[in-house]
Amino acid sequence: LDTKLPKVGTTIFSVMSQLALEHKAVNLGQGFPDFEPPEPLRDAITRAMAEGKNQYAPGVGIPKLREQIAAKTERLYGHRVSPDTEVTVTSGATEALFSAIAAVVRAGDEVIVFDPCYDSYEPAIELQGATAVHLPLTLPTFAIDWQRVRDAITPKTRMILINSPHNPSGAVLSRADLDELATIVRETSIVVLSDEVYEHIVFDGQEHQSVLRHEELAARSIVVSSFGKTYHCTGWKVGYAVAPKALTAEFRKVHQYLTFCTFNPAQWAFAAFLESTPEHYLTLPAFYQAKRDRFRELLAPSRLKLLDVPGGYFQLVDYAAIRDVDDINFSEWLVREGGVAAIPLSPFYEAAPDTRLVRLCFAKNDATMEAAAELLCKL
Amino acid sequence: LDTKLPKVGTTIFSVMSQLALEHKAVNLGQGFPDFEPPEPLRDAITRAMAEGKNQYAPGVGIPKLREQIAAKTERLYGHRVSPDTEVTVTSGATEALFSAIAAVVRAGDEVIVFDPCYDSYEPAIELQGATAVHLPLTLPTFAIDWQRVRDAITPKTRMILINSPHNPSGAVLSRADLDELATIVRETSIVVLSDEVYEHIVFDGQEHQSVLRHEELAARSIVVSSFGKTYHCTGWKVGYAVAPKALTAEFRKVHQYLTFCTFNPAQWAFAAFLESTPEHYLTLPAFYQAKRDRFRELLAPSRLKLLDVPGGYFQLVDYAAIRDVDDINFSEWLVREGGVAAIPLSPFYEAAPDTRLVRLCFAKNDATMEAAAELLCKL
Ligand SMILES: CSCCC(=O)C(=O)O
Ligand SMILES: CSCCC(=O)C(=O)O
Repeated sequence: LDTKLPKVGTTIFSVMSQLALEHKAVNLGQGFPDFEPPEPLRDAITRAMAEGKNQYAPGVGIPKLREQIAAKTERLYGHRVSPDTEVTVTSGATEALFSAIAAVVRAGDEVIVFDPCYDSYEPAIELQGATAVHLPLTLPTFAIDWQRVRDAITPKTRMILINSPHNPSGAVLSRADLDELATIVRETSIVVLSDEVYEHIVFDGQEHQSVLRHEELAARSIVVSSFGKTYHCTGWKVGYAVAPKALTAEFRKVHQYLTFCTFNPAQWAFAAFLESTPEHYLTLPAFYQAKRDRFRELLAPSRLKLLDVPGGYFQLVDYAAIRDVDDINFSEWLVREGGVAAIPLSPFYEAAPDTRLVRLCFAKNDATMEAAAELLCKL
Repeated sequence: LDTKLPKVGTTIFSVMSQLALEHKAVNLGQGFPDFEPPEPLRDAITRAMAEGKNQYAPGVGIPKLREQIAAKTERLYGHRVSPDTEVTVTSGATEALFSAIAAVVRAGDEVIVFDPCYDSYEPAIELQGATAVHLPLTLPTFAIDWQRVRDAITPKTRMILINSPHNPSGAVLSRADLDELATIVRETSIVVLSDEVYEHIVFDGQEHQSVLRHEELAARSIVVSSFGKTYHCTGWKVGYAVAPKALTAEFRKVHQYLTFCTFNPAQWAFAAFLESTPEHYLTLPAFYQAKRDRFRELLAPSRLKLLDVPGGYFQLVDYAAIRDVDDINFSEWLVREGGVAAIPLSPFYEAAPDTRLVRLCFAKNDATMEAAAELLCKL
């Protein structure tokens, strides 16, 4: 049986979580919190099940939830969208990304992605018979070099995929970045796919520069977000996509045949929680900034060099002072011998530079961070 | 913006459910029960949430659930599969079907489907740049004409998609059908995709002829099923795929980037319920046969002609004696004027024959069936 995805193995996140389990390591690899979603949210799922919300939801999501998403989008980013025609609930952000790519990108097209990038982007592009054009972000700030983008545009460029706050680095795009992007795509038919799953996790008083704040870009963009990342329930797999009507129509054509709809009781729960507690996500920056700062403090005595973390819930660390091996080797050694699971950076690259960086997740309780730090400081 | 799916609009199931809502019609359209999943299942979801199963499950599904699926497969069909390498939990059967097609079918390939067929098959095939080759089932029994299949095979045939019990007709394949299929594909590299979401709903003492009972076919098949259909919770969106190791490996490559994983608490709930109550699905044939018989009895005084229903939870009816219009027209009239939502047959066809058939779902409480029958008997 020959494969349609010769470059694809098991995703690094599954591999490292499995190794963490086998070696009883502290798992700072795969990105998920080790604390719980708000209790009212869980109770609301139980209630929705008791109230009989157990059959198919509308494929595009229940109206109440789409209304809450639209309300949030307006409140936060000053951007009005129609819940009926511009918001779609999905089975996690991963499904939203796949649906967006499958809806827009055709065989022979090119999609610009920025390395390091999340590992689901390229297989989704390749399954369309299209090509991912990888442009490197500029280290150590992981900034986009817009001149490189200009040079990479061809008549085949169909989509540019951006991600802010950025996984794995935490880098955030500025308004100037969005203006650059808007200028570049202005006279083209390029669609922007904006992965904003960490939209509420931006530090040091900065504001998240959602594409939805930028009317010109918003008019040609599909913006993806994740309730799993925002409400500490990555295993519930509820996300959504916001896009103008014409793009949403294409998106929904694919979405309806990919998963049809999403776990119905959770949709009622999120709708109720967003309505009753719209301020919850406003607490996230301080909540995660305290974790970031605590984690960095705990790692200060280690031989790891800590890169800046403007957003998201990952800390990149340079381990060069500990071992001079590549990041896959280091991560395997670290989980086996060091007792900590991390994520190497090279799987996020088409052609990885010769860095000594791994990613650690700090969406963890103090005890977990402390246990990990104790191990990491011994190295 | 030109579309990748020019033939696709909103799926007929969403359209009819929306119309049912607007016209306050009794909804016998979209296939879902109007009764609840077993209470222990719902309680187990609440428990799983309280126990902290709220973060990512393994992408392939939690081991306990895969073990239960393997145990069921062996118990019921005498077919041993490895939970580790041959079972994958998915976000509903729809996702499993899409992943299977995306994993196996390439641009230029042909996939044989049998009309009438479920409306997600063809868009999934078209998104691969492949072609759906539609063969008509023989009315009124909706049997496969194997000579036609033989004649339709070309070097490009990559997959044959079967569905038993069949949606919308309820027709079931026999052992002889599976033998025919095995003979036809024997010297080829054709993969069989078997949609068995109604596997537990087969009537009149027949046995479901799962492809998994047929060792030769099982060795080249991806078999898809649905907990939503079996446990009365279509809105929970948990399904699975069983396939030999090499096919499962390809399937998982796609699945991990389509949805990554499925609502984690429900996986724990299904694992517990399958373990504690393995006999639940054995009660389904009698449960649904009683509904089928009751529904037919209620409709006996009407001017609808009832086709035979060997399995599944749909009743096809011929409305020719009531109105001589096509099925789309009739369905729209029925939901507006008659107060009952049905599903027309033509959306299940590439080229619909000139029949006068619509589909009614009898996965309903007595009161719902009675209310619908009262309206239908007036026509
Ligand atoms: C879907 S598993 C990966 C989760 C994640 O976002 C990450 O670890 O980067
Ligand atoms: C996913 S909505 C359609 C449900 C169904 O299986 C049907 O009505 O045929």
